[in-house]
Amino acid sequence: MSMHPILHIVKIGGHVLEEEAAWNTVAGAFAQLAGSKILVHGGGRKASELGEALGIPVRMYQGRRITDAETLEVVTMVYAGYYNKRLVAALQAKGCNALGLSGADANSIRAHKRRGGEVDFGYAGDIDAIDHRAIGRLIEGGFTPVFCALTHDQQGQLLNTNADTIAAALATALSSTFAVRLRYCFEKPGVLRDPERDDSLIDHMTRSDYARYRDEGIIQGGMLPKLDNAFRALAGGAQTVSIGSYRDLSTKSGTILAL
Amino acid sequence: MSMHPILHIVKIGGHVLEEEAAWNTVAGAFAQLAGSKILVHGGGRKASELGEALGIPVRMYQGRRITDAETLEVVTMVYAGYYNKRLVAALQAKGCNALGLSGADANSIRAHKRRGGEVDFGYAGDIDAIDHRAIGRLIEGGFTPVFCALTHDQQGQLLNTNADTIAAALATALSSTFAVRLRYCFEKPGVLRDPERDDSLIDHMTRSDYARYRDEGIIQGGMLPKLDNAFRALAGGAQTVSIGSYRDLSTKSGTILAL
Repeated sequence: MSMHPILHIVKIGGHVLEEEAAWNTVAGAFAQLAGSKILVHGGGRKASELGEALGIPVRMYQGRRITDAETLEVVTMVYAGYYNKRLVAALQAKGCNALGLSGADANSIRAHKRRGGEVDFGYAGDIDAIDHRAIGRLIEGGFTPVFCALTHDQQGQLLNTNADTIAAALATALSSTFAVRLRYCFEKPGVLRDPERDDSLIDHMTRSDYARYRDEGIIQGGMLPKLDNAFRALAGGAQTVSIGSYRDLSTKSGTILAL
Repeated sequence: MSMHPILHIVKIGGHVLEEEAAWNTVAGAFAQLAGSKILVHGGGRKASELGEALGIPVRMYQGRRITDAETLEVVTMVYAGYYNKRLVAALQAKGCNALGLSGADANSIRAHKRRGGEVDFGYAGDIDAIDHRAIGRLIEGGFTPVFCALTHDQQGQLLNTNADTIAAALATALSSTFAVRLRYCFEKPGVLRDPERDDSLIDHMTRSDYARYRDEGIIQGGMLPKLDNAFRALAGGAQTVSIGSYRDLSTKSGTILAL
């Protein structure tokens, strides 16, 4: 067993952020988690809504947002403003000393603009480095970091980075000083054999199970990058990685991953 | 002389936030200030622009924004998202380890919703308490706080609070542990006898000078609440308080206040 102190890293996304009741459930359960913790959140749907209201078309490629300059403004306002500050205020009301961050804050997550592939993703950032010491100082200072899905290139440019990826990268970087328990939370009970049936939960999954499910087409779509991130975090040193419902934040239920 | 370490508190607002060149000048000059420092910013004009684009009418009373629920969403996005993160990224690019905050973050500024007077200002917050210890821990941790114009009531509600007022309240609260040098920066060289003439600078002003200028109508409009805040900070313990151009951040030029 690791002698490092426990650090919970919880990523919330999906419908959780859109429903006030779900939000309160998550904030309450997260605030009650014992030990050090970090919350990571996205907010894509509200960003799409605001973009549409402002006449900025939403463009996606394989589930990833194409971030032109105007879209970057929108996601900066929604992720770092609307969601991050509301989450921080909700957690403070529950007695959790939350402190909201983008990757630019405290130079915590440095990234580079994604290099040209078949698609130009614009201001999308791929992570280069996480300053786990700076984040550790904040945690030691009694604060609970709440990360939104933004990074920066340290040249003054903010970048849009997937929240699942940020959670996995934080888990890996902080594994050098913490026993990290990473949990991806959404509205489903975990990874399902049949997305329409909540009782089809896969409660345990190894990397070879994952390869088989993927090859058989049982797992597909947006769950693939999520699981890629989750296994990357596990390989990177996270002590436990699970995917499950926001209702079961404090339990071990859901899909537990193993290498 | 105080034995406390120097803390610069710089508030920027007005046209400075709208012009990219001014912005770079301020970020560069601020990053170079020696010693501990805090930046405070507003962002009202962009908030008005975004509100208008979304069909949310701007309503002001005596220069103060009336903040209904929709307007609160807009200012949260603009202050904590758009401006705060862009400023943090710009400062990081200049080597300043900026960390953006609202008053909800780290429970740094607690406020209450303004009580009913002749006008209902909605979600406008009047400051109750500043956690100078939490802010001090961030500064000791090597971070430079960048505050936007938002506070919270610790019950989960974000509130819109004037950035000049936040700067003055921070100056007062942090005077117990720092020798605070508070500077209000905008596009003018300081307080002017004639707003149209930059060579009409009032370079030194006591409280009794201020009362006389105000009674004679020489100082009026938005400069009155700014000076009220500035003198409050001076009475509250700030070592120096000045009002001047963002171009002269590192010099002593501008209007120097005295009790």
